[in-house]
Amino acid sequence: MTHFTTTQSIPKITKQWIVDGQNGLDSLKYTEGPIPDLGDTQVLVKIHAVSLNYRDLIIPQGKYPWPVKPGVVPGSDGAGIVLAVGKNVTRFQPGDKVVTMLNQLHIAGPVTNQSNKHGLGGSVDGTLRTIGAFDEQGLVPVPECLTYIEAATLPCAGLTAWNALFGLSGKAVTAGQYVLTQGTGGVSIFALQFAKAVGARVIATTSSNEKALFLQRLGADHVINYRETPDWGSRVKQLTPGGVGVDLVVEVAGPTTLKQSAASVKLDGTISVVGFVGGESKETMPSLLDTWINLFTARGLWVGSRLQMEDMCRAIEANPDRLHPVVDPRVFKLSQVKEAYEYLASGKHQGKVCVEIEH
Amino acid sequence: MTHFTTTQSIPKITKQWIVDGQNGLDSLKYTEGPIPDLGDTQVLVKIHAVSLNYRDLIIPQGKYPWPVKPGVVPGSDGAGIVLAVGKNVTRFQPGDKVVTMLNQLHIAGPVTNQSNKHGLGGSVDGTLRTIGAFDEQGLVPVPECLTYIEAATLPCAGLTAWNALFGLSGKAVTAGQYVLTQGTGGVSIFALQFAKAVGARVIATTSSNEKALFLQRLGADHVINYRETPDWGSRVKQLTPGGVGVDLVVEVAGPTTLKQSAASVKLDGTISVVGFVGGESKETMPSLLDTWINLFTARGLWVGSRLQMEDMCRAIEANPDRLHPVVDPRVFKLSQVKEAYEYLASGKHQGKVCVEIEH
Amino acid sequence: MTHFTTTQSIPKITKQWIVDGQNGLDSLKYTEGPIPDLGDTQVLVKIHAVSLNYRDLIIPQGKYPWPVKPGVVPGSDGAGIVLAVGKNVTRFQPGDKVVTMLNQLHIAGPVTNQSNKHGLGGSVDGTLRTIGAFDEQGLVPVPECLTYIEAATLPCAGLTAWNALFGLSGKAVTAGQYVLTQGTGGVSIFALQFAKAVGARVIATTSSNEKALFLQRLGADHVINYRETPDWGSRVKQLTPGGVGVDLVVEVAGPTTLKQSAASVKLDGTISVVGFVGGESKETMPSLLDTWINLFTARGLWVGSRLQMEDMCRAIEANPDRLHPVVDPRVFKLSQVKEAYEYLASGKHQGKVCVEIEH
Amino acid sequence: MTHFTTTQSIPKITKQWIVDGQNGLDSLKYTEGPIPDLGDTQVLVKIHAVSLNYRDLIIPQGKYPWPVKPGVVPGSDGAGIVLAVGKNVTRFQPGDKVVTMLNQLHIAGPVTNQSNKHGLGGSVDGTLRTIGAFDEQGLVPVPECLTYIEAATLPCAGLTAWNALFGLSGKAVTAGQYVLTQGTGGVSIFALQFAKAVGARVIATTSSNEKALFLQRLGADHVINYRETPDWGSRVKQLTPGGVGVDLVVEVAGPTTLKQSAASVKLDGTISVVGFVGGESKETMPSLLDTWINLFTARGLWVGSRLQMEDMCRAIEANPDRLHPVVDPRVFKLSQVKEAYEYLASGKHQGKVCVEIEH
Repeated sequence: MTHFTTTQSIPKITKQWIVDGQNGLDSLKYTEGPIPDLGDTQVLVKIHAVSLNYRDLIIPQGKYPWPVKPGVVPGSDGAGIVLAVGKNVTRFQPGDKVVTMLNQLHIAGPVTNQSNKHGLGGSVDGTLRTIGAFDEQGLVPVPECLTYIEAATLPCAGLTAWNALFGLSGKAVTAGQYVLTQGTGGVSIFALQFAKAVGARVIATTSSNEKALFLQRLGADHVINYRETPDWGSRVKQLTPGGVGVDLVVEVAGPTTLKQSAASVKLDGTISVVGFVGGESKETMPSLLDTWINLFTARGLWVGSRLQMEDMCRAIEANPDRLHPVVDPRVFKLSQVKEAYEYLASGKHQGKVCVEIEH
Repeated sequence: MTHFTTTQSIPKITKQWIVDGQNGLDSLKYTEGPIPDLGDTQVLVKIHAVSLNYRDLIIPQGKYPWPVKPGVVPGSDGAGIVLAVGKNVTRFQPGDKVVTMLNQLHIAGPVTNQSNKHGLGGSVDGTLRTIGAFDEQGLVPVPECLTYIEAATLPCAGLTAWNALFGLSGKAVTAGQYVLTQGTGGVSIFALQFAKAVGARVIATTSSNEKALFLQRLGADHVINYRETPDWGSRVKQLTPGGVGVDLVVEVAGPTTLKQSAASVKLDGTISVVGFVGGESKETMPSLLDTWINLFTARGLWVGSRLQMEDMCRAIEANPDRLHPVVDPRVFKLSQVKEAYEYLASGKHQGKVCVEIEH
Repeated sequence: MTHFTTTQSIPKITKQWIVDGQNGLDSLKYTEGPIPDLGDTQVLVKIHAVSLNYRDLIIPQGKYPWPVKPGVVPGSDGAGIVLAVGKNVTRFQPGDKVVTMLNQLHIAGPVTNQSNKHGLGGSVDGTLRTIGAFDEQGLVPVPECLTYIEAATLPCAGLTAWNALFGLSGKAVTAGQYVLTQGTGGVSIFALQFAKAVGARVIATTSSNEKALFLQRLGADHVINYRETPDWGSRVKQLTPGGVGVDLVVEVAGPTTLKQSAASVKLDGTISVVGFVGGESKETMPSLLDTWINLFTARGLWVGSRLQMEDMCRAIEANPDRLHPVVDPRVFKLSQVKEAYEYLASGKHQGKVCVEIEH
Repeated sequence: MTHFTTTQSIPKITKQWIVDGQNGLDSLKYTEGPIPDLGDTQVLVKIHAVSLNYRDLIIPQGKYPWPVKPGVVPGSDGAGIVLAVGKNVTRFQPGDKVVTMLNQLHIAGPVTNQSNKHGLGGSVDGTLRTIGAFDEQGLVPVPECLTYIEAATLPCAGLTAWNALFGLSGKAVTAGQYVLTQGTGGVSIFALQFAKAVGARVIATTSSNEKALFLQRLGADHVINYRETPDWGSRVKQLTPGGVGVDLVVEVAGPTTLKQSAASVKLDGTISVVGFVGGESKETMPSLLDTWINLFTARGLWVGSRLQMEDMCRAIEANPDRLHPVVDPRVFKLSQVKEAYEYLASGKHQGKVCVEIEH
């Protein structure tokens, strides 16, 4: 193979997990495979860290609503070092530290049917392996101030939060606005941090006083225990000047919270809807017509574009003290991926669940 | 009264309708009243034309969900000529032709609790009278190319359509985009015209072939008869290149159409939700979570600001052939307001139902 | 006068300065005048603090390029308490703390010929008096965390800086961007603070190492002494990652600095041009064609709108630690206005030069 | 070569022009070369049409201010059909009609130092050849309603005009605004057409009454003969309501016109500076400080991004009657490229000078 440049010796084999079936953890198999041929515009990456997401949990369960490639290497997020580059690569060189994009083709602008078909760990091979090849368009430099593990938390949780706050150009969060975040999941923590970094105020909901302390240490201006205050929407409004409500809600829970979120948002405010980790609920969710009745904007979003990822990485580099990703202290090895999945599913983590890959 | 300037003799009395009760048309009373004292920043307007809106129908029925002043003069929209101006008025002088704003205090930016409390014909006296006094901030010059009757169609229907298309800065309709409009009501016709004026393409739904012809003459690129194609969402997608769907839906009907609207819109597209003239439906409406499942933005909006109204008027002046408001041929006199309300309620009109006021 | 509401006794007389001629300080006269009649939409304000601006210096010198009313009360900036309100006032009530807008009619949107004709202390009476009447549209509530003196620094210096950073919607400063500020004048210090408050990085120029320390304490990431590095444009580029240059320059000096500013800005970056306090220079300034040759946007701006002022005040309230206006320790009394002007002209101040008015 | 897919037989040889030296037309050599190896993400294009630009004239003269590859194939613009695609190509397939991007790497967002180094016909091989290989990221589908020749006019002239009108998000041209265009060059004609297509009004300058007629037929609302009215800036202002000036100037001439352009633009308006085809002038150009004195924004721009190109192509497809590129009737063959360059240099053309390539 002479058609690419490298400064390191390239292994012949990659260790990797694959998703073989839809039986949950039993479908995860730890195997070996050949190093892929490197295309002209591809970059060979030695992967050092991976973070796990809710999406990774449901793919081996067969519950993921978009296509999954049979035998796919799982893993949505990863960070590592460039081993070699194809002959037409212009963006990277060997030795560069890189982090992956979830949607490999979503460079900028709106999501398209096309850009949505190349998700790592779903329709194309992901990051739970020692070495992978990715098109140069699907990678971004690791922010200087972050470790591989920290960088591996960015592609899904970080970018989703960034997009939720800043992705709608006429309604991007700015200094002085109020943002509501829900709980202590990855997206919510990033949203809290990003909001504080641009001078906004944050009201956070949570289920325990212990987590409330954690959120306050991260900078939350107000924390509401939603178990003690199930009708927390009106409490949120009270906490804002004039009782008008928050400018933006980062909605991660879905059915269980949307009603309170709609009660929290101000006139002409925004609810960024990024998932439904709260699971099902017997309560009827507000309908689309509620956007008119209560006058707000509800914006669904899926992760974000590479341009947004690059903006986010610049913001992190400029605020190394305020924007450190929160990683759960329990970090797993590549061989322990099943334990990592179980830990994520248990909900006991605080911060992102990560896998560190030794070489 | 020496503290204002005028070039005309001012009548002592205004004829006016008032809303006396919540018994529907029986609550409308035709009376006389004194000319109001003119405040320092107010403008005295001889009203020449009024257009009627759905809102005007439900206010005397007691069904309007916001506060109504007892004995209010109804009428949301009006156009006329300035008779006199208060001593501190800077924006107008006697002889100017003006059109009213629905929300008298909404000058620019988002709707606020404050700006929302000064709606003509609801919380403050409206336009169904021969002479009224309005703060100069709540008036806009009539576009040169329009008659009083045409201008009177702008404050509610016109501005709502304008805001629906262009009000969300990151997602304003531009040349080449696809817009879906529903039916032949005032907002929908304006939306069709504005979309065509900026070079967009329009798919319109309607209930009859006769109305379809009318929509095509107004410039609709495609018309779908929703009686023949109840599942029209998928048909809309087929009509767009690549089957991706439309960039924007102007949602006026609500419960009866939102499901198909959500099926019509492209990834990262927008549904502007401006009302529910379609009435109730047994079908469950899409919930806010659908914005995430199908990836779109749903934006509720109420009319618009004076800055938007001024932009709209400039656009109309620049496109006198393409942007003529559509007025139903049956125009009523001030004494015939009840007939006008009945005609609007009948749904037989095509274009805005207007009242011309003789002096 | 029964047509307005108040809770306090209103003095009969206001002390005031007037500009009588164009002989510099000799034109400033300290006089008394009657309390103005209060219009229906006006607010009577007991003024507690004023800050001075370069504009105030040149108005009595006859060098101001826009119209000045003969005998005008000078003073562009002021803050005080509401004594009484006209009968149609909706935005304020007696006891409210308010700060003035420089351009009384610029509520939102672009500057117009009309909105530009009502500048306090120039075409209409300003703030260097004990009591003044202002239209309610030309006032904004004082941010809760500020004193009157601090609030009085906002209308010119604060708002200009805010507009320079955030006023061009497609190019508003965000977290991670680089901003260049020049010196230690009022606008530059606010620009530095606002940039840091939203997570951007700041490179500041100055003329002495003492001022450099001051700028670093305010949060500047890098400070360049332009006396030691006259060719500082290339130094600025070196300080940015990849040597690409800064995203935004806040240009306050003009002829003496524009060449270096153009050398500092990145491709597709922005120079916000807000004045020429640097005075004349023998060097030829870059021409408009340089925006094409070096690919950047140069945006002239004059202060800002009330909507922007309100956004700025919210940002200040949300960041009371980071966004405290810097006031020079030497604060003057109303009778000492000439000394205050001289102190401002001397350039010895650090932070805004303010006048406190005792009652 | 098995690593790409095709449905056609691929020639072995391409005819091509090269730039051999800096002696003007004498440096242009008509030669043959091998078909390039097709990279994994590259697309092999049989080129059917090329349009010429001012840039193409000065590259063989050695006057181009950016790097030029020795022996480069000239030609900035081209359109053709896909013959074959590399194995990793996702955006195109054989048989697709495509048009090239000038800056092959500028996909979206601001110009970067990196994206600026891959200009066709300058730093990388261009379009004056029968067959070329381009990365799939540097191509866009031809709008359905256009011929190859028409499509070949889009990448430089069309996209520059589009970016000039719509590229600054807060100041994009909308219906009702006034736009000033200069002369009958490629960018100016496109700017006129795009402005009219979105409902704006156009004032155009020109040098002869014959060209004035041509501009009026294209839709210009007003035409000013700048030979008869050298002080045309004030005339432009008179033509706008209230004498306020135009919202946007598309500045193509530079030194000879910028003074009048600055006199034409309204407060807070924009001058998009896209070149200096007017050549040198003895007059001093307005400086960057004039953006503050007269309150406007001057924005330099270079062509535009692929995302903008795609938006433009959608707009053209939606307005096939209004947005047909204007091609000079004299179309050249590939062997006549020197005559084509001479014709372009002569200034006698009206519309784009194009080369049609026979196969």
